[in-house]
Amino acid sequence: MRATLVYGPDDVRVEEVPDPTLREPTDAVVRVLGSGICEGDLVFARWTPASEQGVRFGHEFLGVVEDIGSEVSGLSVGDLVVAPYMWSDNTCDFCAEGLHASCRQAGRWGTAGVDGAQGDAVRVPYAQGTLVPLSVGEDWALLASVLTLSDVLPTAHHAAVKAGVGPRTSVTVIGDDAIGLLAVLAARRLGADRILLMSGRPQRARLGREFGATDVIAERGDEGVAQARELTGGRGTHVVLECTGTRPALETAFAVVRDNGVISRAGVVQYAEGPIGRDMILRSITLTGGAASPRLYMEHLLPDILNGTIEPGRVFDRTASLAEVPDGYRAMAAGDALKVLIRP
Amino acid sequence: MRATLVYGPDDVRVEEVPDPTLREPTDAVVRVLGSGICEGDLVFARWTPASEQGVRFGHEFLGVVEDIGSEVSGLSVGDLVVAPYMWSDNTCDFCAEGLHASCRQAGRWGTAGVDGAQGDAVRVPYAQGTLVPLSVGEDWALLASVLTLSDVLPTAHHAAVKAGVGPRTSVTVIGDDAIGLLAVLAARRLGADRILLMSGRPQRARLGREFGATDVIAERGDEGVAQARELTGGRGTHVVLECTGTRPALETAFAVVRDNGVISRAGVVQYAEGPIGRDMILRSITLTGGAASPRLYMEHLLPDILNGTIEPGRVFDRTASLAEVPDGYRAMAAGDALKVLIRP
Repeated sequence: MRATLVYGPDDVRVEEVPDPTLREPTDAVVRVLGSGICEGDLVFARWTPASEQGVRFGHEFLGVVEDIGSEVSGLSVGDLVVAPYMWSDNTCDFCAEGLHASCRQAGRWGTAGVDGAQGDAVRVPYAQGTLVPLSVGEDWALLASVLTLSDVLPTAHHAAVKAGVGPRTSVTVIGDDAIGLLAVLAARRLGADRILLMSGRPQRARLGREFGATDVIAERGDEGVAQARELTGGRGTHVVLECTGTRPALETAFAVVRDNGVISRAGVVQYAEGPIGRDMILRSITLTGGAASPRLYMEHLLPDILNGTIEPGRVFDRTASLAEVPDGYRAMAAGDALKVLIRP
Repeated sequence: MRATLVYGPDDVRVEEVPDPTLREPTDAVVRVLGSGICEGDLVFARWTPASEQGVRFGHEFLGVVEDIGSEVSGLSVGDLVVAPYMWSDNTCDFCAEGLHASCRQAGRWGTAGVDGAQGDAVRVPYAQGTLVPLSVGEDWALLASVLTLSDVLPTAHHAAVKAGVGPRTSVTVIGDDAIGLLAVLAARRLGADRILLMSGRPQRARLGREFGATDVIAERGDEGVAQARELTGGRGTHVVLECTGTRPALETAFAVVRDNGVISRAGVVQYAEGPIGRDMILRSITLTGGAASPRLYMEHLLPDILNGTIEPGRVFDRTASLAEVPDGYRAMAAGDALKVLIRP
C-alpha cells in the first residue's frame, strides 16, 4: 500500500510500504476513506530529524473495517469508523474518567510499528476501544465534518470546555487555522455571546464570522491587543483560546485576557517555557488546555454534525489524492490551503 | 511614631517617622495593635535595592481606628478593624466581582506615601472599602487568628478555591511555611479527604497534621516525588498547592500532579518563566492561583475563626515588639520562627 513518510525537515514523500495485517487479537485493519492534514503535522514535519527509514505521518482518519482480531467485539468488517488522533483501550482508569490521551495503553499513529493515517490502510491497536462506528453513508460534505472528530474539532472544543466557556463568557480566539476557526465554532456552540477572532486573512475571517465570531481583529501584536482591549471596555475577555502554539501568541493571550480570566491552549505548543511569573498571579490568570478525548466528546458533537447544527467540515478547502499529499503540506504551510482532505 | 524600613537587601531597621494624618476625605488612621511578618516580606526584603530613604514594610495588620475622613461611613473612632494586604475601594467593577486585588484604586501598604503595616500606625486610603470592623475583645489567641485574615489565610484559601478543592479531592501541599500549613487547613476545611504535606521539618509537619494533613513527605526532589506517587497509586494528586514560590517546587508540582489535575500557586512567585510546554498540554494540567481577596473571603472565614472551628493563628509561634522586628525577620529567614506576631 502507499503511505506518507517524512524523511527530514519538511521532506514529505508518499511511498510503497507493506500492507498492514493483524498482529494482536485486539487489532483491526481499516481501509482509509479519508484522512486530514493537520497544522500539527506541519509543525512535526518541520521538526523531524533526517533519517534513512523515515517516519509515518497522519493522525486523522475515517475508513472501513477490513479485518478484525479475535478479541475485538462491537465492530464488523465493512463498518464505517472514525478514529481519534491516539489509540486507547477505553477501559483503564484514565479512560474511565474521559482522559483517553492519558490512557495506560495510549499510542500515536505512525509510532511503535503502527501505520500513520495518511495512507491506504492502518492497523489499529485496541480497535474496540479506539474506533467509533458511524451510521452514515458516503456523503462527503458530512464525512468531512465527521473527520474533524478525529482531532481538530474535539481539540478546539476541549480548549473551550477547560476554559469554562458558556453563556455570558467573552472569548478571544487567537489563530485562524482550522483549529482557531473551530474554536470559534466550539465557543459559539457552548453559548459564548462575544467572540473576538484574531485573523489577518479576510477569507478565513469570513468563515470565522460564519462560525460565530462577532468581531474580527486583523492587527497583530500590540495593535491587536489594543483593539481587543478597546472592544471590551479596556478589560479584555474572560477567556482566550490560543490556537497557534507560538510564544508571541501566548504573550498576546496574556495581554488580552481579563483579570481572573482563563487562557486555554489548543494545538501543538512550540515553546518549552512561558511567562508565568508574578504578573500572572497578581492578575489571577489561569492557564489550561490539554489533549482532548475525541471519544468522550463524540457523543455530544456527532449528533450536532448529523443534524446539521454545525458544519466543521467547512474547514477543508482542498481535496487531495495520496500522491498529492506533499503538495498539500506545502499548500497549507504557504497558507494557500486552510486544511487538506486526503481521499486515497 | 516608629515604623519598619528596609534600606537594602535584608537591611531591616525600625526608625522614627512622621505620625500619619488624614490626607484625603476617604482616609482613616489606624493605631496598629498587631501586625505580622509574612514570608513575602522576607522575599521582598531580600530583593530591595539599596536606597538612602528606605522602603516601608508590612502588609498585615489589625488595630483601632483613631481618626476618620469626612467621606468614610460605617466606621467609628475606637473600632477594632482588620485590613487586607492591599487597599481597595470595594466599589469598582473589579471589586464588585470579588477581585479586590485588581481594584482600580488598589494599592500596596508602604507605597505611594502610605505607611507600611509594621509600625505604630497606618494611614488607610479608601478606608470604608478597605477596613473590616470586628466585634471581638482583646483576646490574643483569637486576634492572632483574625490577623491571618489580612493575607496568609485568604491567600492559602484562594489557592485551594481556584484549584476546585472539595470532597474527594486529593491534595499535595508543597511548603511548610505559614502559607503552606494554612493551605493544609484550607484544603481540609473545603473537604479534601487526602492531604499530602511536603515538609522536612518535624515541628511544622506536626502542626500540618493538626491542621489536617493525612500524610507527611519529608523527602525533597525526586525522592519526594516518588513518595507522593507511591502514596497515590502512582497517579499523583488531583491538586497541588505550591506555597513556596520557587522554581524547583514548581517542577515538583508538575511531577506530583495527576493528569488532568490542577497546580495552584500561593505566595510570592520568585521566577519569571516556567515549564509550560507540550508535557503540560499532553497531560491536560491546569495552572492557576492568584491574588486573593481577603474582603471577599472574610465572610466565610471569620465566622469559623470566631466559633473556634479553625485556629489559623497557631502559625504565629513568636511575638515581638516593634524594636524586635529585625530579629523577627532573621528568625523567620533562619527557620527559627514560623511566623512572627508584632505587638508594637
